[in-house]
Amino acid sequence: MTKADIGVYGLGTMGSALALNIAEHGFRVAVSNRELPWISDFITEAGALGPSIQPCETLEDFVLSLKTPRVILFMIPSGTPLDQMIGVIAPLLEAGDTIIDGGNADFNDTRRRFSELEGKGLHFVGMGVSGGEEGARFGPSMMVGGTAHSWQQLRPMAEAISAKFQSAPCVDHLGPDGAGHFVKTIHNGIEYADMQMIAEVYGLLRDGDGWNAARIGAQFCKWNDGPLRSYLIEATGEVLAAVDPETGSAMVDVIEDRAGQKGTGRWTVIEALKLGQSANGIEAAVGARGWSADKDLRIAASDTLEGGEIGYEKPSGQDMALGFEAARILAHAQGFAVMQAASDEFAWDLDLARIAEIWRAGCIIRSALLDDLSDAIRADPPSRALILAPVMAERLAKGIPALRRVVSAAVVAGLPAPALSAVLAWYDSLRHARGTANLIQAQRDFFGAHGFERVDQPGKHHGPWSA
Amino acid sequence: MTKADIGVYGLGTMGSALALNIAEHGFRVAVSNRELPWISDFITEAGALGPSIQPCETLEDFVLSLKTPRVILFMIPSGTPLDQMIGVIAPLLEAGDTIIDGGNADFNDTRRRFSELEGKGLHFVGMGVSGGEEGARFGPSMMVGGTAHSWQQLRPMAEAISAKFQSAPCVDHLGPDGAGHFVKTIHNGIEYADMQMIAEVYGLLRDGDGWNAARIGAQFCKWNDGPLRSYLIEATGEVLAAVDPETGSAMVDVIEDRAGQKGTGRWTVIEALKLGQSANGIEAAVGARGWSADKDLRIAASDTLEGGEIGYEKPSGQDMALGFEAARILAHAQGFAVMQAASDEFAWDLDLARIAEIWRAGCIIRSALLDDLSDAIRADPPSRALILAPVMAERLAKGIPALRRVVSAAVVAGLPAPALSAVLAWYDSLRHARGTANLIQAQRDFFGAHGFERVDQPGKHHGPWSA
Repeated sequence: MTKADIGVYGLGTMGSALALNIAEHGFRVAVSNRELPWISDFITEAGALGPSIQPCETLEDFVLSLKTPRVILFMIPSGTPLDQMIGVIAPLLEAGDTIIDGGNADFNDTRRRFSELEGKGLHFVGMGVSGGEEGARFGPSMMVGGTAHSWQQLRPMAEAISAKFQSAPCVDHLGPDGAGHFVKTIHNGIEYADMQMIAEVYGLLRDGDGWNAARIGAQFCKWNDGPLRSYLIEATGEVLAAVDPETGSAMVDVIEDRAGQKGTGRWTVIEALKLGQSANGIEAAVGARGWSADKDLRIAASDTLEGGEIGYEKPSGQDMALGFEAARILAHAQGFAVMQAASDEFAWDLDLARIAEIWRAGCIIRSALLDDLSDAIRADPPSRALILAPVMAERLAKGIPALRRVVSAAVVAGLPAPALSAVLAWYDSLRHARGTANLIQAQRDFFGAHGFERVDQPGKHHGPWSA
Repeated sequence: MTKADIGVYGLGTMGSALALNIAEHGFRVAVSNRELPWISDFITEAGALGPSIQPCETLEDFVLSLKTPRVILFMIPSGTPLDQMIGVIAPLLEAGDTIIDGGNADFNDTRRRFSELEGKGLHFVGMGVSGGEEGARFGPSMMVGGTAHSWQQLRPMAEAISAKFQSAPCVDHLGPDGAGHFVKTIHNGIEYADMQMIAEVYGLLRDGDGWNAARIGAQFCKWNDGPLRSYLIEATGEVLAAVDPETGSAMVDVIEDRAGQKGTGRWTVIEALKLGQSANGIEAAVGARGWSADKDLRIAASDTLEGGEIGYEKPSGQDMALGFEAARILAHAQGFAVMQAASDEFAWDLDLARIAEIWRAGCIIRSALLDDLSDAIRADPPSRALILAPVMAERLAKGIPALRRVVSAAVVAGLPAPALSAVLAWYDSLRHARGTANLIQAQRDFFGAHGFERVDQPGKHHGPWSA
């Protein structure tokens, strides 16, 4: 029997979709799963693609059914289950074989697994897959971290099944070990910020302007025809237009306002902090989800705490659009700054322009902004920070005054805009060549004798108070 | 020879100061240090206290010089050096002996060390010590985590040397294992936020109002006579008044605006996130220090990025004071919320009123606010969250409109106020019993089929879009 090009282990939503996508592109796929009935169900689902798929009930059969050097894609939870599976399958493999983790993983774990398997002559790939089920089935954006050897094995399949932007595959080998999972984590962090900023604009329109869901949805649809065009704006327009079949109300109005989260947003913020950065727009999004979850506290707080609002200066439609665009640029810039810092820290040599390119199709944050950004970065790579790229600076020059009006309107009206205000505060902090940390250094020297630098001479100094 | 009541290992600034403080209170102290000359230097420094101090050049002598069960306080860096020392000294100790780490440690490490030593019949205490060198010498605030046995050993000395608030010792046994170091971490997180908010107010007065350092310093001194009274406000007044002996300029004007940090602020933010919380005012302070450190980027950004300012509506002096007070209350409330979450998570049963009480003297964040807070929490413990305590709600009702005006002024004028705006956004997020996370849940269901709760019936549901 013909050996398979790749093995896919784990036939949940994402694993099944990827296996079908690979089979459809002319590759032979061996599949397996811990629960055996899922395998036969999957073969049924595969229909006409069945002949390209080799079901395997044991790990031994699964491994034997693969061409060597082998490529095995695991689509299972990335924590303990993955470590256990690696422990069981590694002894069945040979030098040169590659194990891929296609789930969302903490890149620190990916680095550890990479090292452990490297010691056994095996290759480990952390591969970020974005686009949800539909992406996985018909073209995801994929971020690959691992060895050049693994990429050589994986590349034909990955490029075939990936989303295409103007026929260019939205997948690439971004760097060694944890680079792929790190970039996917940041992708999700930007996604968190984008969703939160959309929710804040929705809140201003709903609670400030008094618009109903349908009207707000129409506004988002309209925005989706301009520079704000993105998958998330489009999705927002659609969900706001949707009607609950049970009550006839707008669907969003019967949805509980408690948001869940799975970890990638939090990882982004934590890794940023560890790198001496702060992605405060993403932090605001993670925080807002956390606060939303404590609904009992919010109900108690709404009874106990006074608003102290001092009016609402309704921002114009143009202010809302331009300010929102500026805030989205800033959130992207924060994500890219964290990637640059990680690239420096781990010597990954990340190609930020390439990352922007593979995010242009297939993934959740695909947008007109990323289309423009990737061209601009490619043509004129900013020397230090994406935020200094001319195309960004130009757009910000137009959008920042509008963002000031939007944030100020929220602040005086008591409408929460944690992410919009966070990115603006970041922008203003960066713009000040002379900031206020001199006072913090003075305080630290005053009570802790930490010492400070002077502006006019080198060395470490102390203030007259410590004499 | 009389055995010593306690051994202090590590005669740096803090270790020396604590050893002298203990000796002065009538206890016999054995001391040792890796670098032997530091020991003789310390004996010289001890002067008249010398007879109460037993210098020991070897660990064996050090251990033998102590009463059993022994109490040994390590004042050395809390990372690898401490683990190495524990590895060397533990075999010399006996069941019932206690090792104390008096440095700033990641409480996760403290928990690990506690467990490791517990397995050997030894006790480990993580003890937060606040107050800098002067506090250590003449009365620090101390936060003890460990067993009741250790607290019984340590208590007489700790209470004797601690700061006193109206004669009550500012030290207590707060909980097991990492509780003391965790509370100290949060103390420092609040300190970060308080310092950052002071720096933001300074920035508004300097760059918005055009005041010089001396004038701003006089304002802080004036504030220190009212409800804003605190050690940090007082210190700020003093450092702003100080003149550089070399140039004759205000001292702060020749200090470089790049802030350092050592980790506790960052730990606070990371632990908050892990607990599903967000202490976004503290995050802003940590972020601002990180951004300040990248001065080259700020210089480039100040050339490249336009401000887009739209005027400065100077807040009144009263707005500044009241708004600032409200923001400080919110930052404290965030710190207390994180402690409550940790207490629940680790079953520490933290007494938040007691924590506020031991922060009233000796520590860096001591303030009129904490004096009032601790009384209020003791008299009328809030059922869920400090922010809902009546005394907080009352003060916030007065201060929030002022904080809105201050933040709005900063936002339109392009003056960075990341911490002031963050805590206000948190307040407004909490106050909304009906928030905007319903839209986020709709989006997550739209692209990821995550499902959502409904407001009108139990269970997990999907929108009509996923049909």
